[in-house]
Amino acid sequence: MAAWVEEVPEEGFLSRKFLDKPWLLWRELDGSWVMVSDRCPHRFVPLSRGKFNDGKISCGYHGLTFNGKGECVFNPFSQQIPNNARLSTLPVVERYGALWFWLGDASLADQDSIPDFNFIETGQPISCAHYLMGVNYELIADNLLDLTHAEFLHVENFGMKGSLFSHGKQKVEVDDSGAIWNKWDTKDAPPPDWPEHLKREGITIDEALHIRWHAPASLALFIEINRHDTGEPVIPPMANPHILTPETQKSTHYFFTHGRSKEAEEHARKVFLTEDEPMLQAQSDAMDGEDFWDLNPVVMPSDVAAIRARRQLLKLRSEEADQREEVVAQLNFNN
Amino acid sequence: MAAWVEEVPEEGFLSRKFLDKPWLLWRELDGSWVMVSDRCPHRFVPLSRGKFNDGKISCGYHGLTFNGKGECVFNPFSQQIPNNARLSTLPVVERYGALWFWLGDASLADQDSIPDFNFIETGQPISCAHYLMGVNYELIADNLLDLTHAEFLHVENFGMKGSLFSHGKQKVEVDDSGAIWNKWDTKDAPPPDWPEHLKREGITIDEALHIRWHAPASLALFIEINRHDTGEPVIPPMANPHILTPETQKSTHYFFTHGRSKEAEEHARKVFLTEDEPMLQAQSDAMDGEDFWDLNPVVMPSDVAAIRARRQLLKLRSEEADQREEVVAQLNFNN
Amino acid sequence: MAAWVEEVPEEGFLSRKFLDKPWLLWRELDGSWVMVSDRCPHRFVPLSRGKFNDGKISCGYHGLTFNGKGECVFNPFSQQIPNNARLSTLPVVERYGALWFWLGDASLADQDSIPDFNFIETGQPISCAHYLMGVNYELIADNLLDLTHAEFLHVENFGMKGSLFSHGKQKVEVDDSGAIWNKWDTKDAPPPDWPEHLKREGITIDEALHIRWHAPASLALFIEINRHDTGEPVIPPMANPHILTPETQKSTHYFFTHGRSKEAEEHARKVFLTEDEPMLQAQSDAMDGEDFWDLNPVVMPSDVAAIRARRQLLKLRSEEADQREEVVAQLNFNN
Repeated sequence: MAAWVEEVPEEGFLSRKFLDKPWLLWRELDGSWVMVSDRCPHRFVPLSRGKFNDGKISCGYHGLTFNGKGECVFNPFSQQIPNNARLSTLPVVERYGALWFWLGDASLADQDSIPDFNFIETGQPISCAHYLMGVNYELIADNLLDLTHAEFLHVENFGMKGSLFSHGKQKVEVDDSGAIWNKWDTKDAPPPDWPEHLKREGITIDEALHIRWHAPASLALFIEINRHDTGEPVIPPMANPHILTPETQKSTHYFFTHGRSKEAEEHARKVFLTEDEPMLQAQSDAMDGEDFWDLNPVVMPSDVAAIRARRQLLKLRSEEADQREEVVAQLNFNN
Repeated sequence: MAAWVEEVPEEGFLSRKFLDKPWLLWRELDGSWVMVSDRCPHRFVPLSRGKFNDGKISCGYHGLTFNGKGECVFNPFSQQIPNNARLSTLPVVERYGALWFWLGDASLADQDSIPDFNFIETGQPISCAHYLMGVNYELIADNLLDLTHAEFLHVENFGMKGSLFSHGKQKVEVDDSGAIWNKWDTKDAPPPDWPEHLKREGITIDEALHIRWHAPASLALFIEINRHDTGEPVIPPMANPHILTPETQKSTHYFFTHGRSKEAEEHARKVFLTEDEPMLQAQSDAMDGEDFWDLNPVVMPSDVAAIRARRQLLKLRSEEADQREEVVAQLNFNN
Repeated sequence: MAAWVEEVPEEGFLSRKFLDKPWLLWRELDGSWVMVSDRCPHRFVPLSRGKFNDGKISCGYHGLTFNGKGECVFNPFSQQIPNNARLSTLPVVERYGALWFWLGDASLADQDSIPDFNFIETGQPISCAHYLMGVNYELIADNLLDLTHAEFLHVENFGMKGSLFSHGKQKVEVDDSGAIWNKWDTKDAPPPDWPEHLKREGITIDEALHIRWHAPASLALFIEINRHDTGEPVIPPMANPHILTPETQKSTHYFFTHGRSKEAEEHARKVFLTEDEPMLQAQSDAMDGEDFWDLNPVVMPSDVAAIRARRQLLKLRSEEADQREEVVAQLNFNN
């Protein structure tokens, strides 16, 4: 995921870095989206320092102008367009109020591989949020895939007073879409403090805390809290995207949604930016650039989902490396 | 170039870094200039943290004292001067109100190789300026050698409303001194907005915009604007030094002159430090330490002068490397 | 040395980094001291971000809890303790109001190798100070082992107006404990300005300025100033620890004591942090990561003690490397 649609200015563009490279996103007049390199091929300055007009970006240094196909359409110095004056482009589509891009071989881009986040558009009215976290995306995915950390790191906000440990059962599953799920189901557990009447009336609850991960790091969290006796919801079921896109090896775009209130916005910022991020940065500092596995981590049953996700990424990376080698071998053979 | 003469305090010294090494500059009683290493050979602290008196600098850590020849002239611990207590020195001379030094083999230092900046002393009264820019000097020289960038980056200050492109002709020349010139000459072009009467009276102008480059990066800019009909000057002819000396790989001393007014000072700071420098830093960041040529830049006719200058530097570096190898080979032979 | 005893909170712990690794220090209920790694073996976050209670530290991320032996004593997820859930520990003992640790093979830890700092507890009432200096510990030891620098760097505070050079004699000795001493003894020298009556009455002084170094960098400074005629003390004899423990290659814990007054505290901060540290940081910057000996330093008689200390460290490092090789060879042989 590159951005929320609403992050891109109406008659302008958005500049954002992914995997160490800067890109520009804008909407064409026909409503389609484009994504071009934010680096002029003449002297390498960011085109985002230039001027945008009518779907074309002019470099602020010497004026070369490019369209959304990455073509140079104006050279102030002559009628001739220099041969290699071209911007890289990436396939990008809109879905679920978000923009999705594909960094690999463009011919392999497959919209069907975008995970299902239908709930974003069909659920309660929401606000879209974007955070930039100063850690590697895999550490954030680890954090999300093991929600037991809420009992310690978010105890004031989400803590279940240990009922996860006393009454919960964990299941790790892979669904047909290839997603890894970590499902904690709590049965007949003491109710939370709120709403107040539950405790007074001796009502216990069932809670489902399910998180879903699609490679590389598109997560969705589903929470249900029901009365154990009647099965009636105590709160409306919740579904939230937690979509992570690397900016660099050590920073990550974090896309989230929350309720429309100022309170919900502040609550989310508090949890992500004052509880999660400092802990993850301390973790990142402590790991000091070493590989996760080389540090010989203690592995517990609660880690199974996160570890499966890490293994799947290793497999994908290894397959990609094999494919590249094959392409190179093929090229050598043909020559 | 190391400094403007007026930058060196009357009875003191100037400390400045060139090519990663710190140096001290001062004027001897006989009026000659000296340049010695700003690093004590005892414990390597900067001598500039010590005390300067009567043309001698005393280390602020343990008191070793050196004269302008780099000789240790006082050891507080004994009458004996330690053998290797010596500072490196560099040849340095005053010319055009500036100090010029030679980093190579001292026996090859040749005052005649200092480019002609006579106009600094013979022209209008000026103020000397020194900026420290956070980019490699070659990127600044590229910027200066292709003045068409003024149409985009300095459009408010120097923009000629496109007349460079519509009425201008570019010529790149090498003169007898080995300097590379990039000359833009505009004929019979629409006048600038100022002075106002030109447009009213239907007077067109001829403009000469000539920039000269001497290796490694001493540039001079000459501007003339004349009435096309009578040839009379619209403004007095202008000449400005733009002399660049590397501080480190990523920072450059920029020596310039401007008119004596506060306004002229502010204008220069605005153009160099709020228009040029941020663009050049964005360029430097985008290049991320990669070699200019490895990035396969688009090359346009307007780049010819800058590219010749880059090639000349490559040639000079390569010759220097050859000479060093020869010296080593000779030494080996003699042994 | 790890810390002053009084730096560790009564019912809490101290977190401090030594040689790039973070450690926790606390006092057990039986009064003994423990030192365990401040890094959770599960996800590597600092345990100091967690909760300390009853001599046990709980990780603030997922709740694993460890005692002072480094054992995991509670796993919120199950009765089972994961196999490799263990913290490294270090031997640590209290002596002279300070905590002393041993980073090497625990079986070789020898309390008798702690240098004698008995004067800390038996002398005048003192306050304990801890500074963090942003330079390598060997540069600080060099600084202390050559106290002539006081004549230049601390001339206002400790300068002896050159009497060290005119009336002083230096002796470098090694004592039975293996300590290196640098002893400056000044005889029949002009008195300091204070107390005032000395100069008025024409009384000269004898001064002993003796500094002692134990590897790796535990120093003690002894100062005596007596009337030359009667031998009576002009000021009470002074003894101060200057104990240095590396935090990283470029930062050092500096342990010191000074008189109990606010004035004494401010004086010490002024000397260490506004006179010594900036000079040492300038030195460190100038050395730019190069090895001290590779820079071919000027060596003077006043450097002899510092250079002997450096040589002893080189010898200790080389012996340690040999021992490691022997252990590896032995292991290979046994296999």
